[in-house]
Amino acid sequence: MIYDKIKQSFDKQGLMTSLDAKLLLVEKGLVKISCQYKPGLSQQHGFFHAGVATSIADSACGYAALTMQNEDADVLTIEFKVNFLKPAKTQQLIAIGKVIQAGKTITVCDGLVYDENEAKLIAKMTATIITIQLN
Amino acid sequence: MIYDKIKQSFDKQGLMTSLDAKLLLVEKGLVKISCQYKPGLSQQHGFFHAGVATSIADSACGYAALTMQNEDADVLTIEFKVNFLKPAKTQQLIAIGKVIQAGKTITVCDGLVYDENEAKLIAKMTATIITIQLN
Amino acid sequence: MIYDKIKQSFDKQGLMTSLDAKLLLVEKGLVKISCQYKPGLSQQHGFFHAGVATSIADSACGYAALTMQNEDADVLTIEFKVNFLKPAKTQQLIAIGKVIQAGKTITVCDGLVYDENEAKLIAKMTATIITIQLN
Amino acid sequence: MIYDKIKQSFDKQGLMTSLDAKLLLVEKGLVKISCQYKPGLSQQHGFFHAGVATSIADSACGYAALTMQNEDADVLTIEFKVNFLKPAKTQQLIAIGKVIQAGKTITVCDGLVYDENEAKLIAKMTATIITIQLN
Repeated sequence: MIYDKIKQSFDKQGLMTSLDAKLLLVEKGLVKISCQYKPGLSQQHGFFHAGVATSIADSACGYAALTMQNEDADVLTIEFKVNFLKPAKTQQLIAIGKVIQAGKTITVCDGLVYDENEAKLIAKMTATIITIQLN
Repeated sequence: MIYDKIKQSFDKQGLMTSLDAKLLLVEKGLVKISCQYKPGLSQQHGFFHAGVATSIADSACGYAALTMQNEDADVLTIEFKVNFLKPAKTQQLIAIGKVIQAGKTITVCDGLVYDENEAKLIAKMTATIITIQLN
Repeated sequence: MIYDKIKQSFDKQGLMTSLDAKLLLVEKGLVKISCQYKPGLSQQHGFFHAGVATSIADSACGYAALTMQNEDADVLTIEFKVNFLKPAKTQQLIAIGKVIQAGKTITVCDGLVYDENEAKLIAKMTATIITIQLN
Repeated sequence: MIYDKIKQSFDKQGLMTSLDAKLLLVEKGLVKISCQYKPGLSQQHGFFHAGVATSIADSACGYAALTMQNEDADVLTIEFKVNFLKPAKTQQLIAIGKVIQAGKTITVCDGLVYDENEAKLIAKMTATIITIQLN
């Protein structure tokens, strides 16, 4: 099933393991990934580095795009843009990747990164993803 | 000196330490950061995760912006956009942050991420950075 | 009132007049602008040029940001990013600018461009806007 | 020839005619378009509207991408991001679209918008363009 395919791929992402990121939810068009704070993820003021929020949002968007494609497809991020709305002062980041439009070749996703309560919107990504047919 | 201020800040970024990133060069308007490959930085196909290229490019752009400001200033990334041009198949990523325009409040930087030979352009960032006066 | 301030500014935008754009709605945090199709707004295939969708979305986002500020403020677009989701085959474009986060200095808006029925999402902008205090 | 193909397409863009835009130069990987100031292209302070700079930069990038493709190809802009660096106070905007990387499917271009002397960089675009094979 789609969860298994994505969990298997997620577990191969060395960076997700290094970040202690967790795959929380996989639905058609929506993927949620969290990441607990530890000092090794900080910027110079002790909050989460923008790169961490971006990394889990990118993975969430990519996998959300993948839920819309057939079994033999893989996806690649062409580009993304992220606005940083609030300081990432929180014990946990929660990234939600949502498909805005899925096409045969191009899928566009929103990536929303929240604090631990999913109350404060910390960062907002728009990602453009391309589908590669493997077979 | 500007190198010392930036090196001190860089060393406080837990994420740069986790990535084993190195601050290679600091000049007025230009900062270079490298990152050696290790499995903990990969995506599912074993290359560098886009989040790693983005993290070091973001730090390089932020510090490049900081070189243009007075001693009491700090900088924050408002937003960035990254295009991923080639697969990050390389032993080392080298990110170069270059100031395109420095203003009193807003600085815009290019972030170029190359392979280990600085020959292949892997990713291209444009970052918008705000200056905060600390005193 | 806020509508009057924005209508007055809108009427001074020569480009909005050239595009025959109409200011449809002004609320706190939300502005709607429409634009009727005519051949002078086309790209080479006879649909709306991406630049038209972008122009009215930019104005809608800027004015949405302005509704959040005090009377003496003006706003400037620092940057925006637009994804083009569907061909702009429609008799009318409707752009909705919505404030995602308003700060003292920086405001971030979504700009959504729909077809004449507000049913088909044609383009999606994220805009970063700076507030300038005039007095 | 490539100039003729692009000039023919350019002349079909109603918006380029409405803006009085001129196709100045077509080379492999580089296209230049200018636009003379007139009141119908202004924002509320009497300078060029951001939408005008964006429109000619978008066309310049799209055509620059097209110069890299075979005769039967057409191109579509998937997305772009523009930073506005200086007020567009000038008698003429000159947009230069330059290919950064051309692929079979995806081409990435820089769009640089200068003042009439090509001295002051007013806006900087990065555009992602997809190639469509027509036959």
